[in-house]
Order: sequence, then structure tokens, then C-alpha cells
Amino acid sequence: MALFKIAVLEGDGIGPEVVSAALKVLYRIGELAGHHFETEKGLIGGSAIDEKGTPLPEETIKLCLEADAVLLGAVGGPKWDHLPTEERPERGLLGIRKALDLYANLRPAKVYEPLIEASPLKREVVRGTDMVVVRELTGDVYYGEPRGIFTQDGKRVGINTMRYTEDEIRRVVRKAFQIANLRRKKLTSVDKSNVLEVSALWRQIVEEESKNFPEVELEHLYVDNCAMQIVRRPSSFDVIVTGNIFGDILSDEAAVITGSLGMLPSASLGDRYALYEPVHGSAPDIAGKGVANPIATILSVALMLRYSFGLIREADLLERAVEVTLEKGYRTPDIYTEGTIKVGTEGMTQAVIQTL
Amino acid sequence: MALFKIAVLEGDGIGPEVVSAALKVLYRIGELAGHHFETEKGLIGGSAIDEKGTPLPEETIKLCLEADAVLLGAVGGPKWDHLPTEERPERGLLGIRKALDLYANLRPAKVYEPLIEASPLKREVVRGTDMVVVRELTGDVYYGEPRGIFTQDGKRVGINTMRYTEDEIRRVVRKAFQIANLRRKKLTSVDKSNVLEVSALWRQIVEEESKNFPEVELEHLYVDNCAMQIVRRPSSFDVIVTGNIFGDILSDEAAVITGSLGMLPSASLGDRYALYEPVHGSAPDIAGKGVANPIATILSVALMLRYSFGLIREADLLERAVEVTLEKGYRTPDIYTEGTIKVGTEGMTQAVIQTL
Ligand SMILES: CC(C)[C@H](C(=O)O)[C@@H](O)C(=O)O
Ligand SMILES: CC(C)[C@H](C(=O)O)[C@@H](O)C(=O)O
Repeated sequence: MALFKIAVLEGDGIGPEVVSAALKVLYRIGELAGHHFETEKGLIGGSAIDEKGTPLPEETIKLCLEADAVLLGAVGGPKWDHLPTEERPERGLLGIRKALDLYANLRPAKVYEPLIEASPLKREVVRGTDMVVVRELTGDVYYGEPRGIFTQDGKRVGINTMRYTEDEIRRVVRKAFQIANLRRKKLTSVDKSNVLEVSALWRQIVEEESKNFPEVELEHLYVDNCAMQIVRRPSSFDVIVTGNIFGDILSDEAAVITGSLGMLPSASLGDRYALYEPVHGSAPDIAGKGVANPIATILSVALMLRYSFGLIREADLLERAVEVTLEKGYRTPDIYTEGTIKVGTEGMTQAVIQTL
Repeated sequence: MALFKIAVLEGDGIGPEVVSAALKVLYRIGELAGHHFETEKGLIGGSAIDEKGTPLPEETIKLCLEADAVLLGAVGGPKWDHLPTEERPERGLLGIRKALDLYANLRPAKVYEPLIEASPLKREVVRGTDMVVVRELTGDVYYGEPRGIFTQDGKRVGINTMRYTEDEIRRVVRKAFQIANLRRKKLTSVDKSNVLEVSALWRQIVEEESKNFPEVELEHLYVDNCAMQIVRRPSSFDVIVTGNIFGDILSDEAAVITGSLGMLPSASLGDRYALYEPVHGSAPDIAGKGVANPIATILSVALMLRYSFGLIREADLLERAVEVTLEKGYRTPDIYTEGTIKVGTEGMTQAVIQTL
């Protein structure tokens, strides 16, 4: 009987609800397949600020470094919006990504046929969309120094630094090529190399790495053009790789066209550690009401089974169970349409467990 | 009889074709309304590199500084793609924006009812969309120093600098408030202030300026969220204001959802100078074939009449003529659908002139 240690960071807003739902499903998988999942909770984000005065307490980092994987809910909320940039809940998220060196953020954006009507795009445009955005997660303007608000000649000046080393680019690009190689063998690299030197270096490295993956078809797009093509021809993308800030924007755009943000999981991978979290935010407006959609977190657990524990069969089983549950007609309010069965967080969780 | 001097920069690809089409329309307006438009051509972009060895010759800057307004086609193409970032055709564009201090780029994104089927979005999502993205155009990571590709410990490092002074932010934000005030009185400011100090300063200044425009409703969105909302609820936006790089991405995203990129004009305004250009690029694949859609450039001329020459009646007339021409069923190949009348660049131009 295998034992897996999971650090659980519930975070803020609906974080605790969706995480507790996903853990119920995980435990059930453990029973069925004979694995033991040991979980321990840590604080992050706004709730960590409230209890410990910092968005990322030392104990939390230690907990994550000792775990086999990390499951995170969501961070942030209006309660902490007045805080300066460097003290906000989001700093907890940025801090843990850096502490665990989670350089590759995998954001699958897939259209579920039973939910296709929820997409803002026309059916014929969005049908068949199934892409993964690989976003670099530990570099770029998110972390570059110098940064800050300074005073020059009595005036305020804001400065951030966009910065990538060739090694930082190479490792995430290589991971993206590997993922493309396991999928439909098409990689789109996104940059702004007609303007930015950081991007020109990015493109050079992508070209260098592509020599090692001759079977993967490579395309380069400028970020503004890519923002257009995601809306125009989403089903033509397989894997997209890009830097941290462009990836932040494009992965959310790719998510929204599927019409089911509450369904999308993510994995943040390094060479040693990994963190899994739903794509949606902390949704403070519906927190505590028992109506949050737990599927994105449940599917994040599936990614954990697959990438961190190598439990491919269990991951497949869980993903299939979610699909079947949707086919049966169960819907949380965010994806509810007439003629389907409206359930809350707990109802959806039990429906998935039932299907399992 | 009023005399207006226009610097004409045709640029590359389809640039010369669409500019020459738009000038025909402009001359016709001159005849009808009794104004004289004097035009003089200058080189920019790839064609300037080919003839003068630089994407922005001194004569071109001088020509623009002496004109009442600048009309630009498009720059760039695969022919110059091998050049390093600092020698590319696009540098001509960045250079002229800076030389004329064109800090506010206005990008209207409006759905034309006769073309609504061309939108990738569902009719009920996109209907009524009519927004203007006000993009800052002379600052941010486009121009910040230090920049370049350096070597550190034998490894390449790419660096660009995101930078805004409070005055740079204030003047474009003020312009956006003024524009919102003349429209539906709603302003959305877009930043990434949960991560970037530049954005935190941006948000501070927006808050300060909003005190001078109490009748304009103000909303703040993070850039990733805005990329989602443009697809999800486009008709809810009136004016969006944001920095140069976020604006580059979001204005193209806003353009594509209208389904008619070949229709969208833009104006780049400073306190003294102004430049008008279509939103679409140089489209080298269709250059010289006589099929490019000239409407975006014709509508850019309408913006010039309105903003630079104060010829409001003529601008209205021209915009109306374009609408009527579309209602009559004339379509270039990019917007052609069965049952409409397919025409080329010249055919569309003559149809607009006819309607005038
Ligand atoms: C909350 C914020 C700091 C974060 C980011 O920008 O990385 C979020 O948008 C995300 O994509 O995970
Ligand atoms: C060609 C390029 C330099 C330019 C920009 O990024 O500003 C273009 O994308 C635009 O939006 O006008």
C-alpha cells in the first residue's frame, strides 16, 4: 500500500470548500485503489496574513518541501485589497512558486461537449478545442529586479524588470516540447520579439531547442496576434509555451473560451516539486454558500495523481468519472442550464464519488 | 477653402494599396466639401530599410513634424524578419510614435450589424459591442532602459524595463476620462497591480484623476481578468485605458471579436501631433493582389477629419457612407459571405465614393 504525503493549502474565499470537496474524492480513490493519502494543512494568502501576519509563513514552505505534492485552493479577496503590492495575499502564491521552483505552469483548456453551449464562442469555432498553455512561472517581470515605486525630481516613477536567462527559458521550453511530443506534436511559442529583447532571446532558445524535437511542428506567434487567434481558431492549438506575464493573460483567455472556468485544473511543475490548483480565483462573492463548483479542484487532484504519483489509471478513472457525472446532467449553479440537475458543492462531490 | 497638409507613410505589404484607396476617398471629400488636402509621401519600415538603410529616415520625421496629420499604412514583413530587434521595420513605427509624442492610441472596436455573423462570438454575446481601447503608446516596456541581451557568467540574459512616470500615466488617463465623458461615461482601467509596482502606481494615478471626473463610472480590472471579460461580456465595456504592452494585447483581442479586423481604424494622439492607421498589419500574403480591404484605412481618414481637422460633418458623412456601402452588400474577400457582392480594393473604394 503506497503512501503519499500531500500539503494542503486551502487559502481564501471558496478555497477551503473546493479543497475539502476534492479531498473527499481523493480519499475515496485511496479506498478503491488501496493507496494511502496523508494530508496536512498549511496557511497561505489572506488567511495566513490574518493569523500569522504574512501571506507565506515559514512553516508552510517547510510543509510543502516535505510533501510529495501540494494542493492549493485559491488566494486573495477584497478584504486585503488595500495592502501594498508586497504584502498582499498573492505574494504567498508567488512565494511558494519560487520556493518550490515550480517553473512550468500547465493550464489545459478543453471544451467539454456537454458544456459547449456555455462557451461565448460559436459552437463551430470552439468545437474540438483541446490545448495546454505552458506558462513559465518563476521568472519574467513577476520577479525581476530592480522593482518599486521611486521618486525622481519630486515625481513618482514605477519600475519593474522583465528578465529571463537562457537556462530559465530552456527548461520550460523543453518541458513544453516534451508535452507536445506526447500530444498532437504541435507547439506554438508566443513572444513579442519584434519589440522586446527578452523575447528575441526567448525565440532564439526555442529555435535551438526545436532541433532536439524534429517531430514537433513549431510555430511562433506575437502575443497580440496570439490573443486574436485563441478567439478565432482555438481548436488549431495543441501546446502553447510563453513567459510568465504573457502566459497569465493568454491562459485566462484560453480558459474563458471553453465556457467552463469552474472546470479547469492546473499543475505547476518543477524538477522536484509540484503544486496543483484550480484555475478559478477565490470568488469571495459566493464563499461559504456551498455553491462553488468543485470540479476544477477535483480535476487538479487528477493531475496530481498523474504527474506526481504516477497513478495514471486512477487519474484516467477520475477524469472519466467527472465526464460521466456531467453527462448524467449534474450541474453547479455556474454551469446550470434548464433541463439539468442543479446541485451545490456537496451534491456535485457526492455525484462524482457515486460515479467512481 | 481650408488647406490641410498630410504626411503619407505607405509602409510595406498592403500599406501602399490601402493608403492609395483611402486617399482617393479623401480627395473626393475635398471636392465635395471644398477643402484642399495636400499630401506628401515619406518612407517608413521595411521599404525605408531597403531604400535608406534605416526604418525611420530623418526626412520622414521632418515631414511628419511639418504636417497637420500623418496617415500610415502598415509596416513589416517576412523579408525583414531575420534582422535584430533594433533594426527591424517595427522600429520605424516605435520611432515615429516617440518623435511625435503620440501618447494615446485610440482603438475603437465596434460591431457592424451587417457583419455580425463574421464574429467568432455568439451573436447574443457580441451584439451591441462598441468600445474604445485607449492604449498608452510612448512608454512602458516598449521604451524602458536598460534593455538588451547581455552575457552573465557565460550565459545570455534578456532584459527589458517596464517603466512609467506619474506624468506619463496621468496624461493618457486624463484623455481616457475625457473620451469616456463624451461617450457612455464608463471607464475600465486595466493593470496588474496585485503583482507589479508599475501597475500599483498606475492605479493610484487613475484614482487621483477620477476625482476630476465624478460623472464617469470607474472600474479596475486585472489584465488577466480583462482578457476574459472582453470575450465574455464585450458589450459592457465603454472605454478601456491601459499601458502600452497590455494595450497591445487587449486592443487586438477586442478587435478580433468584432469579426472585422479589416474594418478597424486607429488614431494615435499627442498634444500637438496625430497619426492615423488601420489596425490590421501589412498582410504580405495578399500584398499586390488588389484584394486588401481598404475600409480600415478609409475609416482612419474619417478619424483624421474628426480629431485633427475638426471636420465633424465630413467625418460623419464618411463613416455613414461606409456603413451604407456595407448595407448595399459590397464585400472584400476577407468579409465576403454568400449572397453579397464580392469586390477588390478598387471596387470597394469606388463603391464608397459612389455612396458619398
Ligand atoms: C493572483 C495572481 C498573482 C496570479 C498570477 O498572476 O500569477 C493569478 O492570476 C494566476 O494566474 O495564478
Ligand atoms: C508592430 C508592433 C511594433 C506594433 C506594437 O506592438 O505596437 C503593433 O503590434 C501595433 O499594435 O501597432
